[in-house]
Formats: sequence, structure tokens, C-alpha cells
Amino acid sequence: MTGRRRSALDEARAIALLERALKSSARGRRIELGIGDDAAVVVPGTERLVFTIDACVEHVHFDRRWLSLGDLGWRALMAAVSDLAAMGARPLCALSNLGTPAAITASELARLGRGQGAAAAAIGCPVVGGNISRGDVLSITTAVLGETARPLLRSGARPGEELWLIGELGLAACGLALLRKKRRPRSRSGALAQARALKRCIVAWRRPNALIAAGVELGQRASAGIDVSDGLGADALHLARSSAVRIVVEADRLRRAMAPELAIAAGELDRDPLELMLAGGEDYALLSTGEKRRRPRSARRIGRVERGQGAWLDREGDLTPLVSGFDHLQAGE
Amino acid sequence: MTGRRRSALDEARAIALLERALKSSARGRRIELGIGDDAAVVVPGTERLVFTIDACVEHVHFDRRWLSLGDLGWRALMAAVSDLAAMGARPLCALSNLGTPAAITASELARLGRGQGAAAAAIGCPVVGGNISRGDVLSITTAVLGETARPLLRSGARPGEELWLIGELGLAACGLALLRKKRRPRSRSGALAQARALKRCIVAWRRPNALIAAGVELGQRASAGIDVSDGLGADALHLARSSAVRIVVEADRLRRAMAPELAIAAGELDRDPLELMLAGGEDYALLSTGEKRRRPRSARRIGRVERGQGAWLDREGDLTPLVSGFDHLQAGE
Repeated sequence: MTGRRRSALDEARAIALLERALKSSARGRRIELGIGDDAAVVVPGTERLVFTIDACVEHVHFDRRWLSLGDLGWRALMAAVSDLAAMGARPLCALSNLGTPAAITASELARLGRGQGAAAAAIGCPVVGGNISRGDVLSITTAVLGETARPLLRSGARPGEELWLIGELGLAACGLALLRKKRRPRSRSGALAQARALKRCIVAWRRPNALIAAGVELGQRASAGIDVSDGLGADALHLARSSAVRIVVEADRLRRAMAPELAIAAGELDRDPLELMLAGGEDYALLSTGEKRRRPRSARRIGRVERGQGAWLDREGDLTPLVSGFDHLQAGE
Repeated sequence: MTGRRRSALDEARAIALLERALKSSARGRRIELGIGDDAAVVVPGTERLVFTIDACVEHVHFDRRWLSLGDLGWRALMAAVSDLAAMGARPLCALSNLGTPAAITASELARLGRGQGAAAAAIGCPVVGGNISRGDVLSITTAVLGETARPLLRSGARPGEELWLIGELGLAACGLALLRKKRRPRSRSGALAQARALKRCIVAWRRPNALIAAGVELGQRASAGIDVSDGLGADALHLARSSAVRIVVEADRLRRAMAPELAIAAGELDRDPLELMLAGGEDYALLSTGEKRRRPRSARRIGRVERGQGAWLDREGDLTPLVSGFDHLQAGE
């Protein structure tokens, strides 16, 4: 981890405490050199390398009123690693670029690092280096390197295949909406199920999980895949465009894939839970396509692939275009 | 290149024009999949993978009054790739995360992309993907993947070895100081050499070059290496600490390595050119150590490695500690 362009004292201190916070995660056998030189050194394998980058920026992707710095570190890493899951790849290691306001304290930085480190340990993706620079707002940019024998692209979907979902949809969007409305789980008696549902949604937004194992299985079984970060509608459209097919989400099947907690929590917000499933991003579920006989056990069929174009919702035979997903910029965080 | 978390229209347009601007650079044989999916896919080799990240942030690392958006794209990529040169590695590919203010126009974004693309083509490091998100200021975070048979670390310097310099020192710092003071090259007759010197310094700051070929040669000959981005003093100290040795820069040898243009341009600023060589960063010269008999032809000896600690300047036998390098935060850009 280099810390260029920071004052000398801050730099040394910041790097030392991040190194400490991230150390427990940096146990990859393939990592020959981690934090502390000009770059990290990794032992190559024989599989394809998969390489991706993602950013979490304050006031754009998050607001510190709604999550702790530990949550932020966790989320930033998991969101980046999720792109590997979408490609059917396993993570090798990550680099993290922190932009920090001048006012950030050592203990805040350490909490952020521990959140990253916890996610890195949970997902098997050591943070092997990075960079720190000053910024007006807090930001984390994470680059991730992974590998897979057979990358799962967006472009392989074929008419006649099924549309599959692995993971939950809508919980994170519901959790964020609850936080914005300051609806916290209450523990009044008789409302335990409700409190649990709200809590599950909030945790889904604050501490998402990249579905690496599921992605690896899809890499062997699916024809195309993407992770749902922009929302089911927007990401289904990405699949449809890349594969030059029509993707149809079937409302009744989608409803059957609804988490019971979502139905409860959406009621608290007077929102249609199906709408949250369609538009909500950031659960980092995996959307994929494939032949019926190859569907993994953990995947639920939520639609079909047809000749044509676009992403559509089928409500009992009535087809309407799926609107664009949750937009972080226009949502006015 | 994914463009998550930007409004739908902007996203599609921004990605399309960046893809166009970067296309000419993306010709690596090893790149199996570039911009357009969840991640890029690269064919592995047998050498060690080298992995690094660097950021360029407006008002911290640059000011748009002093460089064009094309220069910025170029600089951002070269600065990141320079860390590979420091490790003796060749670049494979890069990912770029852009943070853009809402007011940025399509033509501005295209100019930035063309600058990145030009640097990528010049250095053989295709930009194979990235991410765009909104930010209060313009920023480019670049992750670079490279490879080398034998990584050159900071920690291998041994007492008795020579200290080597490849590339120029002080020109970029002088160029930035000239831009800040609004001293532009004039073309009055009789001052042609001076105008050329000022111009060379400004170009050194705006369009630096990562010294990849020199780094690869050092990887085979040097015992330790680093790229000079913080300033000779600060980076010599990094080498000294990592290797647990004393690094001594010899003033007379350093003066002999001075570019003639630096002597001329420093006069225009009433600055000591040796001071600019010691404190100035961002030329991306390579500082390394090794045995005399292994010194590459392109390297100049500027000092020695001794038992002890710290980085020191030897002025005719009088040793003083080398102060910390150029600090972008405290320089008050």
C-alpha cells in the first residue's frame, strides 16, 4: 500500500493502521507480496484472469447516517467482488483506493479497514495493497482480480432458455428505503416477525454478500449471467442487449421467489414488494439464463428467453417493458 | 466497462464514447474480453502477476488550469503504470474508474478518454474496462495488472552497492512551478533555448512516461527499486527503510545527472535546481540499487548504499538528512 500525496505523518499512520486492519484477511497462498511495496505480487494459475473495478462514493452511493464505516468497508469490497461472481469467477485478491476527507480520524479509518478486512476474510479475497489520497468526500474504489476456467458472459443467452435467479431481490432497496424513512425495527411485543423483517432488509443493504460459490456453479451450467446491482429491470436489459434476445420476467414466478421478510417490510413502507424486486438493486443476486436441465438447485426460474429484444414483465400474458432500475443519482441521496 | 449509478442516458452515452476513445489502445493479444461485460478477461502467463492502483484527484493532484483533459488522461495512466516499472514488470492491462462532476460534457469525457488511450497505446497497456460514477470533483483511479519473471522489491538493497538513477529528476516539479507562476515559454529572439527548456519542463509534468523497458532491465540487474513519485528524498527513504540500510545521495554526482533544461528553467523561478531534483516528484524516474558491475548503461550512479539507516545527502563529505519529498497536500494546489 502506497500512500502518496498525503502528508508524511498521516500517510505513515494511515497505512500502518490499514495494514493492521487488513492483515487477517491477507492469507492467500497465491499472494507472494502484499501491502508495502510499489505493487502486490501474485502467483499466476492456468485459468483465465478476470479483472474488475467498482467505486463507492459518499453522497452518491451511500450516506454515513445510514451505515457504519465498518458496513461501508464491507459493502465496498462485496460490491466489487460481486462482478466476479457474475463472471463465474473466484476472487484472488483486491486493491483498495481510499479517498478520505482531511477530518477523518485514525479510529474511523481503522473501522473502515476492519469492515473491508471482515468482508475479505468472509469471501476469501485478501486486500493486498492500495492507495490513499485526500478527497472532499469519503470514497472507496476497489479493483478485484479473480480467475475462472470458463468466464460466464452476458452475451450467451439463447431463445428457449430459462431465466434464473439466485439470491434475494428487493431486500436491500427496502432496507435503504426504511433507513431513509427512519423506520427502525421496534421490539414491541407481537411485532417480533415485523422487527425481524425490517432488520433483515437493513442488513441486506448494509452487509451484502457476493455469491461466489453460486457464480462458480453458474459458470459451469448457465449460458449468460450478470449480477443484479442496478435492479432486475436494468440488468435484465443488459443481458437482453448483450445476447440480442428478449428477456421476459414472469410476475407470478417472481412473486413466488419473494422473501417473506420483503412482503412484511414493504407493507411498512406502503410499497409494492414486487416493484421493489423489479427496481431495487444492491442485493447482488445473480441473474442468469440456461437450459432447464442444467438449472442449479439453488436457482429459481423467474422467466424465459425469447427471440426479440428488450426486457419485459409478463403479468398473466400481458407484456410491459421493464423500466430502468434503481438510480442512485436520481434517487437524491 | 460498467457504468452503474449514473443516470441511464448519461451512462450509455459516456460508456459508448469512452469505449470509442479507448478502442485503439485495446489490442493486447492476451485480452480475451475488454469493455462491455461485468469484468475483463485476460489470458494468464507463467510469470508473476503484479497488481497496483493509483488515483488522480482534482484539487489534490491536479488543477484543470494547468493541464488539458487529454493530459490528465495520459498522466493518470502513466502514473499508475510507473509502479509496474518500479517492480521490473511489463503492463498487461488497466482498468479505470472515473469520478465525474455532473457538469462534464461528452466532448470533455472524450478528450479525457483519448488521453488515456494515447498513453495506453504508447506504453502497451490497454484499458480493458472500468466504471463511471458521479463525484464532486473529477477523479481517475487506475488499477494496473502486469507481469514479470522476477519482481524487483524495495527491500533488496545491500551495503556496498551503488545508487542508480534512470530518467530525469526535477523537470516535472519545475514545470508545475512554472505553470503556477504562469511563466510560459516566450519566443522572443535570443531566448529560444530558454523557451525550449521551460516547455520541456511543462511537458515533463503534463505528459510523463513510465519507464517500462528500463524497469525490466533493472529487474534483471538491480537489487532494489522504486519509482520517484514523491520526490527523491522521500523515495530514497522508502528504499532505505524497506532494505534496512542507509541510502546516501552524492550531491556532486546528482548535479552531473541534471538535465541542462532544468538548470535554465530553475533560473527563471529563482530556484536551486538541485533542490528541485531532491524534492520534486512526478517525473517517474527510477531509483534503484545494485552492484557496480551490473549497472545498466542507461543508469547513472548518484550515490551509495551503506550500513545504517535513513536517506542522506552527501555534500563533499558533509551528510545531512534528505527531507521528505514534494507534498501535494501541503503544496496548497
